[in-house]
Amino acid sequence: MTFSALDSELTGPLFATAEMAAVFSDRARLAAMLRVEEALARAEAASGLAPKGLAAAIRRVSPDDFDLAALGAATASAGVPAIPFVKALEAKLPERLRGHLHFGATSQDLLDTALVLQIGDALDLIEADLAAIVASLSKMARAHRKTPQIGRTYGQHAAPITFGYTAAVWLAGIAEVAADLPRLRDRLAVISLDGPVGTLRALSNSGVAVRHAFAEQLNVTGPAAPWHTLRARPAEAGAWLAILLGALAKMAADVAFLASTEVGEAAEPSAPGRGASSAMPHKQNPVSSTVILASHAAAAGHLVTLVNAMAAPGQRPAGAWHSEWLVLPQLFGLASGALREARRLAEGLLVDRKRMRANLEMTRGLIFAGAAAGCLSPKLGRDTAHRLVEKASNIVRATGRPLNEVLVADASIPAALNRDLSAAFDLAPAIAAAAAVTDRILSEVKAGARRTRKR
Amino acid sequence: MTFSALDSELTGPLFATAEMAAVFSDRARLAAMLRVEEALARAEAASGLAPKGLAAAIRRVSPDDFDLAALGAATASAGVPAIPFVKALEAKLPERLRGHLHFGATSQDLLDTALVLQIGDALDLIEADLAAIVASLSKMARAHRKTPQIGRTYGQHAAPITFGYTAAVWLAGIAEVAADLPRLRDRLAVISLDGPVGTLRALSNSGVAVRHAFAEQLNVTGPAAPWHTLRARPAEAGAWLAILLGALAKMAADVAFLASTEVGEAAEPSAPGRGASSAMPHKQNPVSSTVILASHAAAAGHLVTLVNAMAAPGQRPAGAWHSEWLVLPQLFGLASGALREARRLAEGLLVDRKRMRANLEMTRGLIFAGAAAGCLSPKLGRDTAHRLVEKASNIVRATGRPLNEVLVADASIPAALNRDLSAAFDLAPAIAAAAAVTDRILSEVKAGARRTRKR
Amino acid sequence: MTFSALDSELTGPLFATAEMAAVFSDRARLAAMLRVEEALARAEAASGLAPKGLAAAIRRVSPDDFDLAALGAATASAGVPAIPFVKALEAKLPERLRGHLHFGATSQDLLDTALVLQIGDALDLIEADLAAIVASLSKMARAHRKTPQIGRTYGQHAAPITFGYTAAVWLAGIAEVAADLPRLRDRLAVISLDGPVGTLRALSNSGVAVRHAFAEQLNVTGPAAPWHTLRARPAEAGAWLAILLGALAKMAADVAFLASTEVGEAAEPSAPGRGASSAMPHKQNPVSSTVILASHAAAAGHLVTLVNAMAAPGQRPAGAWHSEWLVLPQLFGLASGALREARRLAEGLLVDRKRMRANLEMTRGLIFAGAAAGCLSPKLGRDTAHRLVEKASNIVRATGRPLNEVLVADASIPAALNRDLSAAFDLAPAIAAAAAVTDRILSEVKAGARRTRKR
Amino acid sequence: MTFSALDSELTGPLFATAEMAAVFSDRARLAAMLRVEEALARAEAASGLAPKGLAAAIRRVSPDDFDLAALGAATASAGVPAIPFVKALEAKLPERLRGHLHFGATSQDLLDTALVLQIGDALDLIEADLAAIVASLSKMARAHRKTPQIGRTYGQHAAPITFGYTAAVWLAGIAEVAADLPRLRDRLAVISLDGPVGTLRALSNSGVAVRHAFAEQLNVTGPAAPWHTLRARPAEAGAWLAILLGALAKMAADVAFLASTEVGEAAEPSAPGRGASSAMPHKQNPVSSTVILASHAAAAGHLVTLVNAMAAPGQRPAGAWHSEWLVLPQLFGLASGALREARRLAEGLLVDRKRMRANLEMTRGLIFAGAAAGCLSPKLGRDTAHRLVEKASNIVRATGRPLNEVLVADASIPAALNRDLSAAFDLAPAIAAAAAVTDRILSEVKAGARRTRKR
Repeated sequence: MTFSALDSELTGPLFATAEMAAVFSDRARLAAMLRVEEALARAEAASGLAPKGLAAAIRRVSPDDFDLAALGAATASAGVPAIPFVKALEAKLPERLRGHLHFGATSQDLLDTALVLQIGDALDLIEADLAAIVASLSKMARAHRKTPQIGRTYGQHAAPITFGYTAAVWLAGIAEVAADLPRLRDRLAVISLDGPVGTLRALSNSGVAVRHAFAEQLNVTGPAAPWHTLRARPAEAGAWLAILLGALAKMAADVAFLASTEVGEAAEPSAPGRGASSAMPHKQNPVSSTVILASHAAAAGHLVTLVNAMAAPGQRPAGAWHSEWLVLPQLFGLASGALREARRLAEGLLVDRKRMRANLEMTRGLIFAGAAAGCLSPKLGRDTAHRLVEKASNIVRATGRPLNEVLVADASIPAALNRDLSAAFDLAPAIAAAAAVTDRILSEVKAGARRTRKR
Repeated sequence: MTFSALDSELTGPLFATAEMAAVFSDRARLAAMLRVEEALARAEAASGLAPKGLAAAIRRVSPDDFDLAALGAATASAGVPAIPFVKALEAKLPERLRGHLHFGATSQDLLDTALVLQIGDALDLIEADLAAIVASLSKMARAHRKTPQIGRTYGQHAAPITFGYTAAVWLAGIAEVAADLPRLRDRLAVISLDGPVGTLRALSNSGVAVRHAFAEQLNVTGPAAPWHTLRARPAEAGAWLAILLGALAKMAADVAFLASTEVGEAAEPSAPGRGASSAMPHKQNPVSSTVILASHAAAAGHLVTLVNAMAAPGQRPAGAWHSEWLVLPQLFGLASGALREARRLAEGLLVDRKRMRANLEMTRGLIFAGAAAGCLSPKLGRDTAHRLVEKASNIVRATGRPLNEVLVADASIPAALNRDLSAAFDLAPAIAAAAAVTDRILSEVKAGARRTRKR
Repeated sequence: MTFSALDSELTGPLFATAEMAAVFSDRARLAAMLRVEEALARAEAASGLAPKGLAAAIRRVSPDDFDLAALGAATASAGVPAIPFVKALEAKLPERLRGHLHFGATSQDLLDTALVLQIGDALDLIEADLAAIVASLSKMARAHRKTPQIGRTYGQHAAPITFGYTAAVWLAGIAEVAADLPRLRDRLAVISLDGPVGTLRALSNSGVAVRHAFAEQLNVTGPAAPWHTLRARPAEAGAWLAILLGALAKMAADVAFLASTEVGEAAEPSAPGRGASSAMPHKQNPVSSTVILASHAAAAGHLVTLVNAMAAPGQRPAGAWHSEWLVLPQLFGLASGALREARRLAEGLLVDRKRMRANLEMTRGLIFAGAAAGCLSPKLGRDTAHRLVEKASNIVRATGRPLNEVLVADASIPAALNRDLSAAFDLAPAIAAAAAVTDRILSEVKAGARRTRKR
Repeated sequence: MTFSALDSELTGPLFATAEMAAVFSDRARLAAMLRVEEALARAEAASGLAPKGLAAAIRRVSPDDFDLAALGAATASAGVPAIPFVKALEAKLPERLRGHLHFGATSQDLLDTALVLQIGDALDLIEADLAAIVASLSKMARAHRKTPQIGRTYGQHAAPITFGYTAAVWLAGIAEVAADLPRLRDRLAVISLDGPVGTLRALSNSGVAVRHAFAEQLNVTGPAAPWHTLRARPAEAGAWLAILLGALAKMAADVAFLASTEVGEAAEPSAPGRGASSAMPHKQNPVSSTVILASHAAAAGHLVTLVNAMAAPGQRPAGAWHSEWLVLPQLFGLASGALREARRLAEGLLVDRKRMRANLEMTRGLIFAGAAAGCLSPKLGRDTAHRLVEKASNIVRATGRPLNEVLVADASIPAALNRDLSAAFDLAPAIAAAAAVTDRILSEVKAGARRTRKR
């Protein structure tokens, strides 16, 4: 079934990586559920609440041993896959070990803890991609720290920057989200083992010991409060993923614009057949940007669902929890494809320095208008300076004459200011300013990465 | 791959029907794409733009002839599945017919028209479910038009209604959305055949004839404007589906509340294993309501993406269109499961008249407070009446004495009003009022259904 | 208080019109509530349920007579503004008329019906703007039906269109949403008069007559079912407004791109100070596009809330209805500003035919690559043709030589095809094709407008 | 203008506090903008880039000196309020100081830094409310740690808990969000001072010193990268606020359910006129829950807009930034009202121990079914135990006999197990288990609060 383009054999490979798909496959889910039941059995055995051999027997069961279609049919009736799964698993155990599985736990304990394990694997994948992107963008920013480019606001030429600075801004945006990953990981690396109403009553005095041993088995921790109906964790995961996609989308939006025919300052790395058009043989569509932007566009909607699911009455609500299933794994899927494409861009973006230079010059000095006004301000006052330059700009647009020339010819500007004015048209200070910010970002990102490694 | 719970073998059967999954399966998509290319070939052949045998040759190709994994891999590179599909299809044709496929069309023409065909099938399924739900709820409303029930506002007992009225409100809510389906169908039953930039230039003067023949083949119509970047249609489809889920969620929210242990006025139809709990043998969870509420909760987020995708610059944007793929089919999936469960509720909801009666009586007449105040108003003025009844209500709550008795005993109320007061505690007028609205709704829904059938 | 930028004195004028703000001002809301109570009094008087002079007395009360701060404080306690309003209004009536106000109705009846009246006024404003935009864009499309422009997909030059076609696509997108306005109007022009639990019990047998007279007074109709908890109507209003903003955003996204410095094919109409930059005297930011895109971006989020509010249990839910207040009027505010700016663009967009022509030529014939491949296809087969043109395109990009020349020089293309090839580089067929679609759209929009007028 | 219910004089007091409204009033915004310009002037004067007296002169200007309507009109034309503000401020300065204001900065620097100051004030308000709620809920949890209550899943009675545990879960949910506030604060306590394209070129070598002095003046820090188009910060703020509202909504959803007439275990603190009904004198609507749930429902939509605004091309995008203005302050408004109401609940919720006990007993022992099955499991195997108890439960439901009795009478259960069975019906272990979790939560929250204070 392929209601989501992420799950389609046809379009899935475009939007998600095979590695992430493997993390969230049905078999991987069963594997995680088996790990949970095994860890629980082992933890309970240590407290005398489960027979010794149970954990080992569970370990011998493979996810492939289950009949997915039968489990699915039973889930449609039970409302949660945990119940049919436990029943099916039990049937695979030696008879003497049956009846002890899943003791004291509730469906949500099993499903949430399994999800936590899958999320751990998913975050490993994401972390690796982030590290690679950060490294590549750092390199790109360094390589182009003095490559002049025009800065644009509202799509209009504003003032000069460098392409290294452009890349450094992408880098900073992605690195600041990446910097929050360790915290998110900690928040999500927790067991759920709290029983039907969150009090783990069935385990009576052994509860604390079992929770501790269970968590240790799974290499996560045990939160004080049951989170059956405290759903900040899934919402925080969703928020982080959506914001991560936002940081990637900043880069993609820039690349898509820079790659447009008229601008032409960058192109996505090409490969045979990549971004081809069915009707136009000359075209190379920016597939990477497209995937990132589409994924980001779909992400925020999923986040809504996770935030709304927090209004969860009682010890388990009718619907809110289930709505998470419909969206959270998809956010990981979207992130995987977007990260892969962002990495491709970070590693292989084709940069056209000549077009950058040509674009810088196309407005005949207008981009130095701010600098020119700045030069005139101290002598003429800011308003007058601004007005004179605005007037001169209009002449430039109408006649195509260079701004420098028009200003020098303007009788209302004292000739004594002409030298200052020339300085305003010097590209060097703008480049130096952009390079300085680039360096600042690079060194901060480096320091941040060092901190994270030490952790 | 199973990023969406809709697509999982484990949880998919809970959230979507097999019928709807079949409509949106990858094979069904290929089938729709084949139908599109066949129709195009036939239409173009009629204008001499394609070889005569092409359409027939396409018809001989089966969706099963394609290697989905290969198409998926190529899509990941091309950015759209249309290009690899056309290439693969061509390879399956006799050599003399190659090179004429897909002539003049663009990828989006193929994919959008195929989607239109799938949507047509999906709407058939939805229409059938809606008709069944409307019929069953009509029956339920009629059967219980005089079954007394307490009306609740903000979860508080307010004033008496009937359960038939409750069912009639569900019915009205679902029927008013259903009434808009024919209009939506018309909006969505359109071809896309406009070529790379929407002008169908390659077909020059034959464009009009080919579009007409193409549309006729597929039993849809041809809109004046290319809708490559006019995405109101997908957004309208999403809005209608989300609103449909909202109408079902109204019923589900009521059922979940009525089925709560303390209220106990209704229960979902039971079946062995249905709504069982892994830890609590006595429980029967309201699975149908849960599925509907979860589906509704996930729907609005998808709608956001569709609305945002409308800001589509140029003749095709980078990302906006692709984001639709990630959400629109899911809305159909969600609707299918929610409709199935709504139908189950409409056909089999267990109604407990005794509990309804007991609940009505549990507040010892407080639910007639409004009526009592209404009786006293003409003589005492509304404010005084309201205040006296409010005071008496507090006594009822504190002492457990019936409101009627407390009011009669209140010296500040003229004894002459006692008879009027008694009338206020008569259930009959409230029942009659609820039955009247029920009848009004039933007759309107019937008239609406008749109108739709005639169409 | 100015939590919303729409309501700020500082930023409100940027995002909303003064006319729409007047429709949704607090005083306008009080005026609508007064109209509702007056109509109810008159309707009830006709059935002997209210004193004859009540309606006239209400009419003598002005919205300005109320102490808004006092009403606000009381609302914070009561939870709804209806209760303090009715109390305050009663205090303004002659003593003998008190105690009869609002008889049988509930708070939501008053508030929803008042909202319906405000929405009626708001839709009048929207309709007028839409008519003006449709007229201006029609004119623009006609004026430029043969002005050559390059069509772009994914930001890349694709194939030639005309600017008139571009405008016609904007027109079609806006007109198709506008065409749905009459239906929306009908859906929203309804009273709410159903009493505390929707059965209007207090009015007993007079209910039907009073509802009828009440609706007639207010020039709207009475729906069969109470819509206290059937919230498709607000959700449909929200969906239509969000989709309308989407149609405007399509135009704005195009304008913002076309107005970018490198593209330069269009500019927003200028005015002194408009779109100025605080730091850059030469800049003219596209303010109209910015407002439209920002409004669209904020709209979809509001729609989510309206869709989610449909899960409304009981006869009135705790929170869902109130959440509508927080978003629905804002959608009208956003629409008002976006429509004003869209109208400004439709009426005054500056079109640079020379830049359009220059941009068309900047890729040295690559934009005819599709046409060239089309010419070669019949003889060489589509694949070979596509591949040859792709190769030639790469040469064009590398050397700057015109595509036509490169193809003619290609030995693998039979010389006999050269004449056909030349035809492929003729702009005329592309212009004719674009003009034909433009005409088709113009005539359909005209026909649609005629249908609407007749209505 | 009152497009948002938060800004209406009529409904604003219901949804937002006066304190938060003061933080985001237009005058407060002007005050923050004045503080920013003053700090900039002082920082620049220290580097010789502004005249010495400028900062002091700015300080003498009051927010009340501005003509808001004139600023608003100019903003509608300029597109941002910064430009008219700077112009108006300059006009209020002594002539010799003019022309030096805002030097090197861009509009977004001024507006974002002013917003940062407002957010700082807003977070102070939120922090105080959170501390109060945490304290009161801690007290409530302690007071009721052994008050028996029934736990519910899917609205069904599940197994016993205590009301103290219920309160502790609310506490844990709110405290875990509160624990993240210091981090959010740090993220948001940053200047924006980066100039038109983010490189602060106009300040050349003094940039670093001026940024440092500027940040110090405002008691915030300076981030390495310009965040003009790196909008993770606003999105993170929105996510945190939406998730905070989610944590409050968990409590509100519980309260609304517990306060429903049939359940009756809790009631919102009452006050004269609070939650009154216009038509029903006996009703007390749960206004606090209603406000919280409505605010939460509106919040997620705003978050969508903030996440989507991250796709911000160039050095400033057309629309994305502006869309933030339309939503971010509203999230603070919603939080303020919801926190006020949550505090009211935490401080004054009326708890009905008798009803809790009565509800516990209403299912005649069914809530011990899980425990009973647990008792039988070791001897009979879990499946058999589960099945036997399920059967007995059905008998209880059909006959009204207590479960304990039915089980004891069941011949298929060995009499030897009867004593164990009796133990299963003992409330004490469930209470002890709930109290243990309560204590665990209380001590963790206490430790967390201590950590935060030390910070």
